[in-house]
Amino acid sequence: MTQWNIQNIVDELQEARNEWRTQRKSLKDFGGRELPSKDEIKKIMNDLCGILFPMRLGPHDLRQQSENLYIAHTLEKTLHSLLEQIKLNLTYDYKYKKHNENTDVIEVLAQSIVSEFAQKLPNIRRILDTDVIAAYDGDPAARSVDEVLLCYPGILAIIYHRVAHEFYKKDLSLLARLIAEIAHSKTGIDIHPGAQIEQGFFIDHGTGVVIGETCVIGKNVRIYQAVTLGAKRFEVDDSGRLQKEYARHPIVEDNVVIYAGATILGRITIGQGAVIGGNVWITQSVAANSAVSQSSATKTEV
Amino acid sequence: MTQWNIQNIVDELQEARNEWRTQRKSLKDFGGRELPSKDEIKKIMNDLCGILFPMRLGPHDLRQQSENLYIAHTLEKTLHSLLEQIKLNLTYDYKYKKHNENTDVIEVLAQSIVSEFAQKLPNIRRILDTDVIAAYDGDPAARSVDEVLLCYPGILAIIYHRVAHEFYKKDLSLLARLIAEIAHSKTGIDIHPGAQIEQGFFIDHGTGVVIGETCVIGKNVRIYQAVTLGAKRFEVDDSGRLQKEYARHPIVEDNVVIYAGATILGRITIGQGAVIGGNVWITQSVAANSAVSQSSATKTEV
Amino acid sequence: MTQWNIQNIVDELQEARNEWRTQRKSLKDFGGRELPSKDEIKKIMNDLCGILFPMRLGPHDLRQQSENLYIAHTLEKTLHSLLEQIKLNLTYDYKYKKHNENTDVIEVLAQSIVSEFAQKLPNIRRILDTDVIAAYDGDPAARSVDEVLLCYPGILAIIYHRVAHEFYKKDLSLLARLIAEIAHSKTGIDIHPGAQIEQGFFIDHGTGVVIGETCVIGKNVRIYQAVTLGAKRFEVDDSGRLQKEYARHPIVEDNVVIYAGATILGRITIGQGAVIGGNVWITQSVAANSAVSQSSATKTEV
Amino acid sequence: MTQWNIQNIVDELQEARNEWRTQRKSLKDFGGRELPSKDEIKKIMNDLCGILFPMRLGPHDLRQQSENLYIAHTLEKTLHSLLEQIKLNLTYDYKYKKHNENTDVIEVLAQSIVSEFAQKLPNIRRILDTDVIAAYDGDPAARSVDEVLLCYPGILAIIYHRVAHEFYKKDLSLLARLIAEIAHSKTGIDIHPGAQIEQGFFIDHGTGVVIGETCVIGKNVRIYQAVTLGAKRFEVDDSGRLQKEYARHPIVEDNVVIYAGATILGRITIGQGAVIGGNVWITQSVAANSAVSQSSATKTEV
Amino acid sequence: MTQWNIQNIVDELQEARNEWRTQRKSLKDFGGRELPSKDEIKKIMNDLCGILFPMRLGPHDLRQQSENLYIAHTLEKTLHSLLEQIKLNLTYDYKYKKHNENTDVIEVLAQSIVSEFAQKLPNIRRILDTDVIAAYDGDPAARSVDEVLLCYPGILAIIYHRVAHEFYKKDLSLLARLIAEIAHSKTGIDIHPGAQIEQGFFIDHGTGVVIGETCVIGKNVRIYQAVTLGAKRFEVDDSGRLQKEYARHPIVEDNVVIYAGATILGRITIGQGAVIGGNVWITQSVAANSAVSQSSATKTEV
Amino acid sequence: MTQWNIQNIVDELQEARNEWRTQRKSLKDFGGRELPSKDEIKKIMNDLCGILFPMRLGPHDLRQQSENLYIAHTLEKTLHSLLEQIKLNLTYDYKYKKHNENTDVIEVLAQSIVSEFAQKLPNIRRILDTDVIAAYDGDPAARSVDEVLLCYPGILAIIYHRVAHEFYKKDLSLLARLIAEIAHSKTGIDIHPGAQIEQGFFIDHGTGVVIGETCVIGKNVRIYQAVTLGAKRFEVDDSGRLQKEYARHPIVEDNVVIYAGATILGRITIGQGAVIGGNVWITQSVAANSAVSQSSATKTEV
Repeated sequence: MTQWNIQNIVDELQEARNEWRTQRKSLKDFGGRELPSKDEIKKIMNDLCGILFPMRLGPHDLRQQSENLYIAHTLEKTLHSLLEQIKLNLTYDYKYKKHNENTDVIEVLAQSIVSEFAQKLPNIRRILDTDVIAAYDGDPAARSVDEVLLCYPGILAIIYHRVAHEFYKKDLSLLARLIAEIAHSKTGIDIHPGAQIEQGFFIDHGTGVVIGETCVIGKNVRIYQAVTLGAKRFEVDDSGRLQKEYARHPIVEDNVVIYAGATILGRITIGQGAVIGGNVWITQSVAANSAVSQSSATKTEV
Repeated sequence: MTQWNIQNIVDELQEARNEWRTQRKSLKDFGGRELPSKDEIKKIMNDLCGILFPMRLGPHDLRQQSENLYIAHTLEKTLHSLLEQIKLNLTYDYKYKKHNENTDVIEVLAQSIVSEFAQKLPNIRRILDTDVIAAYDGDPAARSVDEVLLCYPGILAIIYHRVAHEFYKKDLSLLARLIAEIAHSKTGIDIHPGAQIEQGFFIDHGTGVVIGETCVIGKNVRIYQAVTLGAKRFEVDDSGRLQKEYARHPIVEDNVVIYAGATILGRITIGQGAVIGGNVWITQSVAANSAVSQSSATKTEV
Repeated sequence: MTQWNIQNIVDELQEARNEWRTQRKSLKDFGGRELPSKDEIKKIMNDLCGILFPMRLGPHDLRQQSENLYIAHTLEKTLHSLLEQIKLNLTYDYKYKKHNENTDVIEVLAQSIVSEFAQKLPNIRRILDTDVIAAYDGDPAARSVDEVLLCYPGILAIIYHRVAHEFYKKDLSLLARLIAEIAHSKTGIDIHPGAQIEQGFFIDHGTGVVIGETCVIGKNVRIYQAVTLGAKRFEVDDSGRLQKEYARHPIVEDNVVIYAGATILGRITIGQGAVIGGNVWITQSVAANSAVSQSSATKTEV
Repeated sequence: MTQWNIQNIVDELQEARNEWRTQRKSLKDFGGRELPSKDEIKKIMNDLCGILFPMRLGPHDLRQQSENLYIAHTLEKTLHSLLEQIKLNLTYDYKYKKHNENTDVIEVLAQSIVSEFAQKLPNIRRILDTDVIAAYDGDPAARSVDEVLLCYPGILAIIYHRVAHEFYKKDLSLLARLIAEIAHSKTGIDIHPGAQIEQGFFIDHGTGVVIGETCVIGKNVRIYQAVTLGAKRFEVDDSGRLQKEYARHPIVEDNVVIYAGATILGRITIGQGAVIGGNVWITQSVAANSAVSQSSATKTEV
Repeated sequence: MTQWNIQNIVDELQEARNEWRTQRKSLKDFGGRELPSKDEIKKIMNDLCGILFPMRLGPHDLRQQSENLYIAHTLEKTLHSLLEQIKLNLTYDYKYKKHNENTDVIEVLAQSIVSEFAQKLPNIRRILDTDVIAAYDGDPAARSVDEVLLCYPGILAIIYHRVAHEFYKKDLSLLARLIAEIAHSKTGIDIHPGAQIEQGFFIDHGTGVVIGETCVIGKNVRIYQAVTLGAKRFEVDDSGRLQKEYARHPIVEDNVVIYAGATILGRITIGQGAVIGGNVWITQSVAANSAVSQSSATKTEV
Repeated sequence: MTQWNIQNIVDELQEARNEWRTQRKSLKDFGGRELPSKDEIKKIMNDLCGILFPMRLGPHDLRQQSENLYIAHTLEKTLHSLLEQIKLNLTYDYKYKKHNENTDVIEVLAQSIVSEFAQKLPNIRRILDTDVIAAYDGDPAARSVDEVLLCYPGILAIIYHRVAHEFYKKDLSLLARLIAEIAHSKTGIDIHPGAQIEQGFFIDHGTGVVIGETCVIGKNVRIYQAVTLGAKRFEVDDSGRLQKEYARHPIVEDNVVIYAGATILGRITIGQGAVIGGNVWITQSVAANSAVSQSSATKTEV
């Protein structure tokens, strides 16, 4: 009846989905859609940025004398949205693991996660302040701390990460990853929400930075664009499947600097105060206060 | 009369455009604007994602029992928008090549392209399912296939690529490139729509990946961030101009893994099952099942 | 009264902000918010793109015969918005430097900057035309100059840069950096607005490119993804603080080509016509017309 | 702290609300907001208009060959929204009447109301067709039935009424009244959702028409602007309060015509075929086929 | 498959539409939707108001020095939109009358209508200025002419009418009626686009005013809310159908004042300078300079 | 150059505006646009409705426990917007009256008006509560006070009026009138902001009600649709111009009921407790507790 045999294509797409669902078995007919919403999470993160730095990342016409009114109202609204997303994440987890869903348990759990998260916000702000200072102190091109907050992708990435990490710690994997990917898409910086990062962290330029799930990063670490803190190889179990969830990424101690393009792989330790040169490839631990740089392995021909 | 001598600036801008148009001659006064619209194509791609994966990438409040109603309606609407964009692309091509435009020919051609594309959608979905599984199986950090679909930039990039490639094969160069650039801007992954990629393809992290126009990639290939599959050098014709449209990018056979930052250039072949280490620089073919890694060319000073 | 002790969190956030403000002292109670707005600047840049390339980047339904009406109206509107942002930037600078604010001086200064910028637009268009041609001539995959304007992130980046650089020259640091970061987020190309770049500049693919504040780039330079033109090390003053604003990035002379992933650091000179190979690491000047490439420092194991 | 003593005003507004709540007692702390949403209902009504008259009141770019796809998808979506509003209405009613709320009962009841309503839509369309014909036949200025559907406020009012009346019959008073008021605001025609109106009803011009809750209107009745079909006086109960819900508005039999400004009050009967002249005031029944007109009670002075 | 038997309802709605289409025969399968769009016309009218009164009804941030830039750009855009709507109206008329459609004829005709309309705009503005003065002079509550333009529904109604009447004269019945109904919905004033109204026309308050298709209204006429200038009775042809398109509404000569609620019916003449009192009912001509008022036909009871 | 001689029309429109400006002389070249904005005022009024009745007219997802957070934030934001509109109104007044503008005086005056208005809000809420009760008690069709607040146009009209009247008392004529006209357009009820109305006021149905500038209305007055409380005739001064600003509309004492369509004209008094019947025409004072009704001036013909 319609052009293009729409009905026929619809039927074949249905068949393709059926094949997939049969094949994977993990996706039963939930009769609903228990997944956090990327759009909602984008709004939540925008609002959290405003709550944390009202005069810099809040609404443009905010006045300092009304900061608290703005924060109170926005916080209340945002925590409700967050509660909704957390419940969707928990419901999804229950179903995915084929446990019986229990609405009440989920409600109580979600409420307690939101409540705990909300209490932590002032401290998150304090840690982010150390990141802002680290950026200002670490970049000769930075004219002011305001420029840092408004313009540096590394700052956006660490704000999003510090929030995402809180949810990662609560096993809200989907929510945490969605937050991380929103930041990745905006900045080109890909920090897995599992990474543990202490205060005074600064990523300059940032595009291409990858920081893996089990990384542990100390205080006042500075890294540049295209740095990878990755896994060396993946362990497989007896059936040949990748093993998940074991420590496989580097430990970077306090005051380390890692220049652009360096690749650091595996559960090794970069000792405190070490300086890792640009483009180097490191798969073994580096002693504290040492400097590693690329050999001058290029030749010139006229 | 107005501030800033607006009229004067307008006139000078007109003059600058005239210079350009005279100089290039290729841009005659079309009396209209025969170009596909980036905004329209963004909408079309969003809708196609929903049509292919309704419960994951479709509207957030979609219920499984109404998937087919949603798909039927959206597909019909989207194919009409697509038809419009294809006609704009074809009209542009005709004018650019200074052929006589023929509205009827364009209409018939556009209709047949849309129709053929629509028939392929179920198969595109099936191939994308193999990509999703490849991502899930290939990343220890992946908790579920849903996380893969919602959060992995590599998945978004391959969805967009598989659609763009269909239009590339129909010589709709502008449309195909616009789709590819929308994905590039969102993910940092730059796959030229000409690249031929078989099933089970997975790009992890992805930022900085570049895959050239004449690449040929086999089954179950896995690549990491900042990998380049590029051209080694560009051929010039007798008049010193770059030659376009000849095979100049690598062939990557089945089951190859290419780690982060590797650069593979020219029409060489990476044999099946080969593993290319991070940051290596390859300009010659690599045998099947071989492993190439960077020499340990870094030195440490304390 | 409310769930989650909102008032308590608000108070603690206030305390965190107070600590920060006390600590930094540079942020007094301005009683307002003297900062350029990222959202406004996004709109301004969109409109400037339309003004510069009306039939390609202007509104989709624009007809060639009404280009000038569109430009006149949009230019007038955009210059007013720009004036507003420039005044915010100047006011911020005055306050940040603790000078007495003087509304009249700021108004006069802002007006003259806008006026001068407006006069330069036709010339900016002419230079951008050379960049478009450079892209078309430099990429074998480019089918038409229209494809270049619509699809190449490198073109978007250079349009934004040429505008941002004008404001950088007027010491409008925040405004210039915000424009640069908008382009960085869209393209993965990070050009500091301070960089001086002559005509015919082309960045291909682009993701991961970083060009530092004091770079000087000659005519017809072509660079590829992930190239860094950076500082080698940062000078510190007697108190151990980073010195800012001195020439610390490379000079790249006319007709240089720099392939993907090359890292060029420090105030060195890449002589005219030199070709820098992919992934090389350069910290010393390179003679004119020389070619530098990576040694074949990889080993293969079967 | 803030200008204008915001906190003080907030507290006083709280006090005013407390006074009201204490005084009325009917508004306990529901801890939520169980009220249908006017904005949602506006969307639902817009969509229902499109479902009923797809090519005239549906989306502007709808093609006739895709009517059914559009209707199926929109109907499914709209019935879900409607279900939500009906549940809000039912929950409100339960709380207002201080019954124990029972979510399951409400769900079942709401589902059955939606289901029954959906089945009636084809018939509602058929009756509305008779109204469209009545308008076309009854107005010498009508050029086509399409003009009637697109331009006549009387048609919009009767579409909304026929839908609202279905919900009124199910005791969904708030929902029904909100629909009626949306139409009233758009057209100036105020039909209480309780009014029973048979087929072929036409209101011309319409502004100022008021039709009361217990009106009964036969087939093919035609009325003009500013006609009131109202109650004569209100009965009070022993305690002096208005009695609600008894028959107090006119019965208008088949084929009656009532000209502009006529006022007909009380439970009287206008016999079939009667013609009521403009501006007359009627409080007693009128015989079938009679004509009532205003006496010529005006005088002219030069 | 879906809840609520959607498919079943869709089928029955299809059947209802089929019955209607069969029955009316005038609506053949056009395969498209040739109807002007209410939403588009709303935008066009908004823009025309801005073009006619830029500093009062144009965009809020317009500056007087850029009036002409704004008008030129908006006019060009609006005339194109208008052209589109006129072509839809003409196409509809052709199909409705079962003439062969001829795209070229329609294009030429539409172009000439738009062109002629555009030339008339300055004159329409001049006549509207007389209406504004009439309102200011005629209402003791008016504080300024700006208040009149911004706040008086009667002014909005006459702006829309003077535009609609131009299209009525070109037989664009649907377009004209849609404009009239948009004004009716906003103001409660229902002026048929056919009415001929000379300069200096003022309607105060306005709600409920109805002015019929064949009315002829002279200079400097003032009328109040709820006035009807209507038809007395409708002529029927031999087959009993209403006759359309003959002169059936009043002629109101220069300088007449008609107070609120007066009803004037039939092709009678209200002589120049006559004053018609509130609520009177007039079906016969009134001599020039006479005054007609309601007899004091009310009684008081204590 | 462009179609339709745009430039020519622009020039002629300019000429028409020049004629007008010359002629009226009152509109000098302000170089700006000092007029309150209708769109801004619509937003302000929406927010004020939410502030006054948060759980009924506030945002749909508001929870009772966060009423105060919502009110505090919204109030602060709204008062700032209001301040802006008031300054525009005052600036306009200064210019219109050809006084020297004095920005500081305007700022101080505007601040004090906003501050005073804000303090009055709790009391406005209390009076509106009496209006809500009056509506509930006065209409047999009202099922609940919530239905009254959500659905009754008369309630919306009185909320807007009580706010507008506050600004009228401060001589902010334009602002007050704009608020009144927004309500008029939504409800068909036209209350001049000058009217003084005491508590417990109820308008049922409402379409066509007109209440003049100098009306004085006592407590617990109830009126119906199409009632006019107007001026009998307008006084002219020696030069024949209408006199403005003198008492010319009725005084309606406590507990009066006025039925639909009644017209009451001139500075007369309707004594307390009087009942005015529908459609009557009154130009002389009515004693307290009397009842006035229309004589039965209609005749019936069979």
